[in-house]
Amino acid sequence: MKRPAVAALGGGHGLAASLQALQPVTDRITAIVTVADDGGSSGRLREEFDILPPGDLRMALSALCSSSEWGLQWRDALQHRFPGEGPLGGHALGNLLIASLWDLLGDPVAGLDLVGRLLGAHGRVLPMAVEPVRIAATVVGADPARPEDVTDVVGQVQVATTPGRVLSVRLDPDPPTACPEAVQAILDADWVILGPGSWFTSVMPHLLVPELRDALVHTRARRMLALNMVMNTGETTGFSASDHLEVLAAHAPDLHLDVVLADPSVVDGDGDQISDTAAAMGAELVYSSVADPDQPGTHDTLRLAAAYRDVME
Amino acid sequence: MKRPAVAALGGGHGLAASLQALQPVTDRITAIVTVADDGGSSGRLREEFDILPPGDLRMALSALCSSSEWGLQWRDALQHRFPGEGPLGGHALGNLLIASLWDLLGDPVAGLDLVGRLLGAHGRVLPMAVEPVRIAATVVGADPARPEDVTDVVGQVQVATTPGRVLSVRLDPDPPTACPEAVQAILDADWVILGPGSWFTSVMPHLLVPELRDALVHTRARRMLALNMVMNTGETTGFSASDHLEVLAAHAPDLHLDVVLADPSVVDGDGDQISDTAAAMGAELVYSSVADPDQPGTHDTLRLAAAYRDVME
Repeated sequence: MKRPAVAALGGGHGLAASLQALQPVTDRITAIVTVADDGGSSGRLREEFDILPPGDLRMALSALCSSSEWGLQWRDALQHRFPGEGPLGGHALGNLLIASLWDLLGDPVAGLDLVGRLLGAHGRVLPMAVEPVRIAATVVGADPARPEDVTDVVGQVQVATTPGRVLSVRLDPDPPTACPEAVQAILDADWVILGPGSWFTSVMPHLLVPELRDALVHTRARRMLALNMVMNTGETTGFSASDHLEVLAAHAPDLHLDVVLADPSVVDGDGDQISDTAAAMGAELVYSSVADPDQPGTHDTLRLAAAYRDVME
Repeated sequence: MKRPAVAALGGGHGLAASLQALQPVTDRITAIVTVADDGGSSGRLREEFDILPPGDLRMALSALCSSSEWGLQWRDALQHRFPGEGPLGGHALGNLLIASLWDLLGDPVAGLDLVGRLLGAHGRVLPMAVEPVRIAATVVGADPARPEDVTDVVGQVQVATTPGRVLSVRLDPDPPTACPEAVQAILDADWVILGPGSWFTSVMPHLLVPELRDALVHTRARRMLALNMVMNTGETTGFSASDHLEVLAAHAPDLHLDVVLADPSVVDGDGDQISDTAAAMGAELVYSSVADPDQPGTHDTLRLAAAYRDVME
């Protein structure tokens, strides 16, 4: 039987975990990566050259890397960071490589495809948009001294770490131009997976790109949402598992889901509430123990792989 | 017949030209590259990380690059420089890649070999020493206002551009630790080629590394010196072709040469003087028209290749 074509949407460590889990399940993977990062090495590159932030794209490529000695050696090189606090200190080599290829080839997708060939990557990595975006959030209590005030918080780092409660997020430019290959990958997929990942800054941004949202609504693919292992983070202070679904539905009311995948530990009480919320979005709630026993709060790659396989079968 | 094993010694554009010319002649090439550069991207990397200057090594690897689409694409990426004046502006990506591999692998030769594999390089590129060196020169008239004064000029950039006349050069540390693979390559070669290149800052430094100088003296290889196309440069102000040989002999009195290769245009008068100087070093003076008609002052790759072939046959 032909293995399913999967489009995995997200960013950062959550997407990388998802991509690693997908590799035993299928060889037809397209990662679609948020481009809102403005911190660290990516943030400095945006500031210096006004380019797409390469960091999450590099992490996704590394996660899909071939396990050959060649692939692993180049993955380690791309993940390597310059030491110290000097002009290069903290930059990941892979970010500098991707930025150079973009400048040289003039095409973000061609540059990422070439890095994928270097790594022997088991899949393709695409940016969600062809221009860098900035994320902004409407937040209650961003300033702890004024817990009732509703204010704007701008930038991925600021949103991800706000002590307040995020009500909604939006992008600048609005709308950004989607990456056409990413739109096509969603339309051509058998399965689309949203998450896991930082909810407002890695999972939600794709829904704010109209061409991607439309593709998600109209694709013939089945749609799975993979919930995080930890609910209550900086950007989701006070959010239950059910709240995660509700805020997603609020940002993309037309989006129908088929499956919500959750580790039992993240669901409060008897799970009726999240089950109802999922059902309201058209989705079946599937429980699966996917926690990494050695690293609390993260997904175990093989358990997540098993869960993906079971759902897709 | 087995093609000759050639060790080509030098740095910068001169060595790159020599390596390109060697490729039609043999597939057994080892480049041994000076590590005294302290300008540009390499100088900034030395300053930030106290590493070997990677720039001339990168240029040698690029010169040996495979002509496959893959090889040329990665060569262009490695040669690519970040634009602008920011923290990355002016850095060559290949320098950053080599520096990362050195940090990751802890071995300069292993890092360069890996880049060579990426490029499908037709030969091996080695540093002359395993530690960065600084070049210092004794110069007459470094300060044009005091044309008779003898002073020290320190640093490759300073020496290469001094308006004075260089009397001698030395290295710091003295002696530096030679790269053992470079010593072995000289001992195993059929031919060793010195030059072309900046005389004091690219060609001479190898003779100031005792282990390399001893290998050059004792190798069973034949030794060829390729003279530059332009005699009178910043660091060789007022030097005739014959002066080039004499200053080299003064720095390595035990060194015997077999062939001195010269374009006729660089020899003043009837050539008796340089012929005698070459003979005093044991060498036959071979004239060959190797100038690039389109780029005055540089070697034509195919003409230089033909000259190398003729000499080695």
